[in-house]
Amino acid sequence: MGRIVVEVMPKPEILDPQGKAVAGALPRLGFATFTGVRQGKRFELEVDGAVTAEHLDAAREAARTLLSNPVIEDVVRVATIEEVDA
Amino acid sequence: MGRIVVEVMPKPEILDPQGKAVAGALPRLGFATFTGVRQGKRFELEVDGAVTAEHLDAAREAARTLLSNPVIEDVVRVATIEEVDA
Repeated sequence: MGRIVVEVMPKPEILDPQGKAVAGALPRLGFATFTGVRQGKRFELEVDGAVTAEHLDAAREAARTLLSNPVIEDVVRVATIEEVDA
Repeated sequence: MGRIVVEVMPKPEILDPQGKAVAGALPRLGFATFTGVRQGKRFELEVDGAVTAEHLDAAREAARTLLSNPVIEDVVRVATIEEVDA
């Protein structure tokens, strides 16, 4: 079984209330070192057998059309997940 | 400005309704190639200057205590984001 990771983040110019909430909570929990937080999404898509170039093309297309909203989000990564187990 | 990525996924044994919804929508949009989908979260933490080992340690601690719920989620990645711009 192969797996493909798709990562989606809010565009830099878009307000990110979830990230803002995390950024506000960090100093209250003692983490003063971080100056900003953005929160996005991470998907793992499973395919039968090994990941092929066709699978990756389909994942890129799905990332554009279903997994992200291109008005407010960027797809930042589409890649095969390397596995140790067989 | 340095950035650290933290990725969190639902544990394999935990029901993932968001992933299930995406998995159900994919074939309706013509993507028949994927056999399963899991949806998690991706955070970008910003720090002043370059990312240090101390920043990464703080990010790992924040990932465990704030960014994930260890009962139902796994932290799958904490890493420095390599940037091209200065």
